[in-house]
Amino acid sequence: MDDRLLRKFESDAYAAFLGVEFVLVEDGHCVVRMPVRDEMMNFNGGVHGGAIFSLADVAFSAASNSWGSMAAAISVNVDFLAPAGETAYLEAEARQAGRGGRAVNYDMEVRRDDGSVVAVLSGWVYQTNRDLL
Amino acid sequence: MDDRLLRKFESDAYAAFLGVEFVLVEDGHCVVRMPVRDEMMNFNGGVHGGAIFSLADVAFSAASNSWGSMAAAISVNVDFLAPAGETAYLEAEARQAGRGGRAVNYDMEVRRDDGSVVAVLSGWVYQTNRDLL
Amino acid sequence: MDDRLLRKFESDAYAAFLGVEFVLVEDGHCVVRMPVRDEMMNFNGGVHGGAIFSLADVAFSAASNSWGSMAAAISVNVDFLAPAGETAYLEAEARQAGRGGRAVNYDMEVRRDDGSVVAVLSGWVYQTNRDLL
Amino acid sequence: MDDRLLRKFESDAYAAFLGVEFVLVEDGHCVVRMPVRDEMMNFNGGVHGGAIFSLADVAFSAASNSWGSMAAAISVNVDFLAPAGETAYLEAEARQAGRGGRAVNYDMEVRRDDGSVVAVLSGWVYQTNRDLL
Repeated sequence: MDDRLLRKFESDAYAAFLGVEFVLVEDGHCVVRMPVRDEMMNFNGGVHGGAIFSLADVAFSAASNSWGSMAAAISVNVDFLAPAGETAYLEAEARQAGRGGRAVNYDMEVRRDDGSVVAVLSGWVYQTNRDLL
Repeated sequence: MDDRLLRKFESDAYAAFLGVEFVLVEDGHCVVRMPVRDEMMNFNGGVHGGAIFSLADVAFSAASNSWGSMAAAISVNVDFLAPAGETAYLEAEARQAGRGGRAVNYDMEVRRDDGSVVAVLSGWVYQTNRDLL
Repeated sequence: MDDRLLRKFESDAYAAFLGVEFVLVEDGHCVVRMPVRDEMMNFNGGVHGGAIFSLADVAFSAASNSWGSMAAAISVNVDFLAPAGETAYLEAEARQAGRGGRAVNYDMEVRRDDGSVVAVLSGWVYQTNRDLL
Repeated sequence: MDDRLLRKFESDAYAAFLGVEFVLVEDGHCVVRMPVRDEMMNFNGGVHGGAIFSLADVAFSAASNSWGSMAAAISVNVDFLAPAGETAYLEAEARQAGRGGRAVNYDMEVRRDDGSVVAVLSGWVYQTNRDLL
């Protein structure tokens, strides 16, 4: 993968706002990490579902744009399997799983710092041929 | 709905972090608004899917917890129907749509300031009988 | 819509196997009906979720192929909002709801003979330019 | 698992209608098989998405009811990753993946006779305590 792509992904304002770090980006695959901060808490004292989804979506976006042409998310299904509980950070991994024409499927997983699963997601992008760089 | 519930929803740290305002909360129904800020942009210059989802999730959470007992999200499907484009704010509405035992379904919609639809979502919560107050 | 398309949809072996009748097919829109038969029951005496989904899928397929070029389903989310209960037939309606490039979204609804809703679905097809006729 | 449960699952009229055979049923886990027949074809000559979903749903139902109390499906997401193509039969496997209260999540996979994946699904049931026998 072209290094300029990684710099582009790292320039994502929303990812920076949430404090997301890119651990790994390669073709069709991405791992990201987000330290859990007070701003991510919901009114019940747990990590907000929106923050969990957002982390997965950052990984999804980098993995699906890693080929160098713009990919736009069209649909995502998220299953919240366990509360985030006590964890220093959350980690999300996205990986290409299948495709049908320009529609490409990725599966994602969000995990605690002990590796246990918090959420699993399945998302589709529409893969354009518009160059990202 | 008990006013103390609204104050509880407004105490949500993540909703505050995103700048979400509660327009309306009543039994099984919620409307929220979020001014679009630079921090919500993705690397392609659009509003990040995670921010769009998060806004809907704040409405979902308030609507499903409006009955006064804790409801936990178990699954959400989101369809991104159009880019957020140019809009001063995004608005999300969540409304109870059906139930099966303690599993309760809500549909959600995210709209631009001109009312046009950006995303539609369907989510399920598990409705506990744990008092929120 | 070209009449030959309707005849093509009516030639669908699986739709015939389930006894599905086409009530209406027009551009991006379809209504179908299926009399409830003993073969559709599950071991608990209700209409099987697979039969409910299948009916919606027949409507989805006709609506999304109504433009005359082949559309292939990539993803569907179904929410079962109520048991089918006592009803002479089930009716499903599919309607185009949005699109992103060649990925097109349809919403579907399955109803009892009294019009009450049994299931709501959201599905995506990949719209090819391969002529159907 | 009580043998009377397996006999109950095998009494499912819809599963029999589709020619589904139970390969394995144990606690929270089920494998089923369905020979591909002409009645399952769509108007494009492929196996109908409704038939693929139905097979997975039979496995989902047996796996989620294997504990001996009635479980009702509330939501399923299906991703069609590849056409069924040429295969003598389709096989579906369902496995418990997580839970939140009485809402329990299962993942499912539908495969060709060569083991390649046709569809992946994630489904939720509401687990009642009503005895099945």
